[in-house]
Formats: sequence, C-alpha cells, structure tokens
Amino acid sequence: MATQRTTRRPDPAVPDLRLRLDIGYDGTEFAGWARQPGERTVQAELSTALSAILHVDGQLYAACAGRTDAGVHARGQVAHVDVPFDKWHAVAKKVPFRLRGTLPPDIRVTAVREAEPGFDARYSALSRRYSYTLCDSTTGPDPLARMWAVRHPNTLDVDRMNAAVPQLLGLHDFAAFCKQTDGRTSIRTLLDANWSRNGEIVTLSITADAFCHSMVRSLVGGFLPVGDGRREPEWMGEVLHAGERHNAANVAPAQGLVLEEVVYPPADQFLARQAITRAIRQL
Amino acid sequence: MATQRTTRRPDPAVPDLRLRLDIGYDGTEFAGWARQPGERTVQAELSTALSAILHVDGQLYAACAGRTDAGVHARGQVAHVDVPFDKWHAVAKKVPFRLRGTLPPDIRVTAVREAEPGFDARYSALSRRYSYTLCDSTTGPDPLARMWAVRHPNTLDVDRMNAAVPQLLGLHDFAAFCKQTDGRTSIRTLLDANWSRNGEIVTLSITADAFCHSMVRSLVGGFLPVGDGRREPEWMGEVLHAGERHNAANVAPAQGLVLEEVVYPPADQFLARQAITRAIRQL
Repeated sequence: MATQRTTRRPDPAVPDLRLRLDIGYDGTEFAGWARQPGERTVQAELSTALSAILHVDGQLYAACAGRTDAGVHARGQVAHVDVPFDKWHAVAKKVPFRLRGTLPPDIRVTAVREAEPGFDARYSALSRRYSYTLCDSTTGPDPLARMWAVRHPNTLDVDRMNAAVPQLLGLHDFAAFCKQTDGRTSIRTLLDANWSRNGEIVTLSITADAFCHSMVRSLVGGFLPVGDGRREPEWMGEVLHAGERHNAANVAPAQGLVLEEVVYPPADQFLARQAITRAIRQL
Repeated sequence: MATQRTTRRPDPAVPDLRLRLDIGYDGTEFAGWARQPGERTVQAELSTALSAILHVDGQLYAACAGRTDAGVHARGQVAHVDVPFDKWHAVAKKVPFRLRGTLPPDIRVTAVREAEPGFDARYSALSRRYSYTLCDSTTGPDPLARMWAVRHPNTLDVDRMNAAVPQLLGLHDFAAFCKQTDGRTSIRTLLDANWSRNGEIVTLSITADAFCHSMVRSLVGGFLPVGDGRREPEWMGEVLHAGERHNAANVAPAQGLVLEEVVYPPADQFLARQAITRAIRQL
C-alpha cells in the first residue's frame, strides 16, 4: 500500500510543468481512485510512484478525468500532475520505463507526456465513455472474465434495452439515476448509449459530457428489468422524468464498469472548454 | 483448498454412469489440473465438489482431455467422471446449479450431462485447440488482461511467425519442442497454427491431435525469436528436424496459455477413436 505522505509544497523559484498521464487499472483491489487514509487507491499509488521516480519531496497530486469508485476499472483514465520542471527534465526519458517497474501490476501508465497549455484532465474534457459488461449464461462468466463481467440471472434482450435509449439521450436532469451529493447539479448531456451482445457477454457502451456519481451503474440498474422483461422500455423515461430514485432500479455492481475513454478538444480549445465546464457544474 | 480424501470404492451392486463435464478455469491460483498432495488443483476442487453434491463417500475421479500445468487456463476443458447411477439420478437436475454454488469462482462447469457409450474425455478426442496470448506494447498488457496476456519486450511480426508454420504442420516427432517423459512418443500431428494481431494483443491459435508436455509453450518459445527478428522462419524447421531442445527456444510462461476447445467424433466413433489413440500413444 502507498504510504501517506505530506503534500508537496511547490518551490516558488522553480516553475511547475503539467504532465498528462493515460492510465489503465484493474479496480478489483482498489478502494477507488481518490486517496483515502488507510486505503489502497489508484491516486495514492500513482502519486507515490511519480514522487519517487522524480525525486520530489512530499506527495504529488494527480487529478483525474473520472473519479472511479471502489472496484471500478479503467482502460482510458486520464490524469494531470504538476511537477517541478527541473526534476522532470532530469529523468523524463526514463519515466515510462520506471513507472512500469515501480507501479503494481494492476496499474499501467500507457503514456506520459508534457501537457499542452490549458490542459486540465477533468475540466478540459469534452466527454467520457464507459462500458458496462454482464454475462447472462446460467453458469456465470468465464473465470478469466469474472473481474469485469457481472452475472445476471435472467436472459437479457438487447433490443428491448436499446429501445429504452432514445428517451434518455440529450440534456436531462439525471437525479433519478445519481447519488446526489451536496446540492451539485445532476444535469448532464447523454451523447450515446448502445447495448450489444457477443455470445453470453452483454455490453453497454455509454458516452456523456460527464457522469454524476453512480450514474452509469444506476442507469444499468434501470436497463436490467427492461432487458429481462420485468418492465417496459418506456418505464426508464418515466423514472427519469419523475426525478427520484426508483427502488426497482438498483445500482449495478462496480466490477462491470470500465472507464474506456476520455475525449478532449484540440489544444487551442482547452481553456475555453474549462470555462464552459466550470460554469455548467456550478448551475 | 480441497481436502484430500480416500478414492471412492465403486459398489458392485450399483452400476456406474459416466458424466461429461465442460469446464473453464482461471489457472492463476492452481497448481495445474492434476491432483497433488498439499496443492490446490482443478481436479481436486472438481472431484471434491462433485462428491459432496452427489453425496458420494470417498473421492470421485475426474479424467480430463488435456492435463494443464500450473498457471495454464481453460475455456473448453472436457472431463469425464464415473458416478453411481442412483446418486446421480437423485439430484441430476440440481447439479449445474449446485456446482456453481459449490465451486470457487475461478472454476466454472458450463455443462454436465450423461456421456454417450464409449466416451472417454482423453482417448475419444480427435483434437485439442489452445490459444497463446502475448502483448508487445512497451507498457505491458491492460491490467484487466494481465492474467492471460504475457508481455513481450520486442515488437512481434505476425507475418514472419506465420511464415514458420508450414514446415511444422503434419505428422512430426516434436521432441525438440517437448519436455520428454519416460520414453513416451513425442510424435504428434499438428493440424493448424495461426498468429493474429488485435492492437497490442498477439495471439496464436494452435490445433493438434494431441500435444506433448509443454509443447505449445515450447513452440511459442521458438516462434518469438522469429517474430522479433532474431531468427529466420526456417530456423524453427531446423530445430524440429534436429530433434533436440534448442537453448534459443525457451518454454514460454504458463499464464498465456488457454485450452480453448476439445473436438470429439460423432458418438458412434468414440470406441474406434479410443482404440486408435491408445495405439498411437504406445508407439
């Protein structure tokens, strides 16, 4: 487990440089992305590894595009970290190799590079794409897929679930499908959602400008009774417009969820996008 | 871990029935298929679960089509188990459900049924198909694939590896690519081998009538220096015909290997096939 250390104090004499990191992880053994005292988290492992590799005193701070919960995986997480210019340049070429040697096998940094001006992993992002994977065979998933495929006891009809999608697309208040937190807006733009089947494996690919807390897992919890015939596709629209959580739509288990991709605009729009995102979040 | 128990003594008054089981497992935490004292093995877990579910005193014996080594996985393993007729019929319909509840999550039985006369999981089989998976990105495999994808440090050329295949196909003595055991024949018929790439994932699909011990992993160990340019494709044919293990062809790690499928003839040829197989093995 990463040790807890004091946050680094930037040296006013040495300018900081912002790095962009592309990250994948198996979330099974993590208490999520965000650092928590006494817990093994992706943020803590990554920050500790980078601090050691760059010989930085105190803990660096890695900010990510999508703060995943305990047990949630990522193939396309993106983070930024501000590091002292001189420390980075002393070892820059060796950093990818040293990250592979330092990080545990359930985290991988696929790319690390100097970010272009105005880049912010969270606020510059245009959209996030997640996948959610289920297995509806009676015998449960292939043991080699059990970390990321959730068993569903009833056969799922992909067409019925896709029939529920159009009424969810676009700008809505997704309060019915979110864990509400301290008065923040739950208005989001759902850009795409599509269910597909490959043998016994059933997968949702879903894209939004951003997702509220537990939003994908809550939506999956709404799709499932539609998929196995307990509800009609129109029911998800009714729940959405009622604006309150419905006890038939449970939050689906974390292990099925993977943050697949974060999309950013061209670099000359990073700052403009940040301004828009910050304004939306404060609605 | 499955406890070690005394092997069941069949009751001469009650006829045995042969069951066919189709099995998948994540081999990571197993010391292979075959029961060994003090080790966690697939055979022991499966036999113990079946004995408990069927209320059989003493340990049932599960015989498999391909005895996988420690760390090797399976999606299409096949086994047979002889069980007392009466014990099976008392609970037959509940067995799939109870196996799912009893077995650990790294083993799954996808089908269990009464075998047709003459069926023998090992000796009736016509062929076995395995896959071997590598990842040649510099950053190593996706953490969610790390259980079954082996990192290779150099870029692999799939066309070069496929160019080495024709000289290996057909009937050969594969002594150069096997761990020899107590004077048994290493003559096998290689029916098909094909390398393919999907992004950073490079996979061999390989089929033979049967494989000797470590044969797929040894062949992979021969393909790799061809794939990354250290050897010419013809070199694998030279090693094959030299008939001795070559120190440039290492046995590739177990975790990349998956027993994907076992093919059987129509039921009316089970006994004939058994006779042929037993004769070949005794060459």
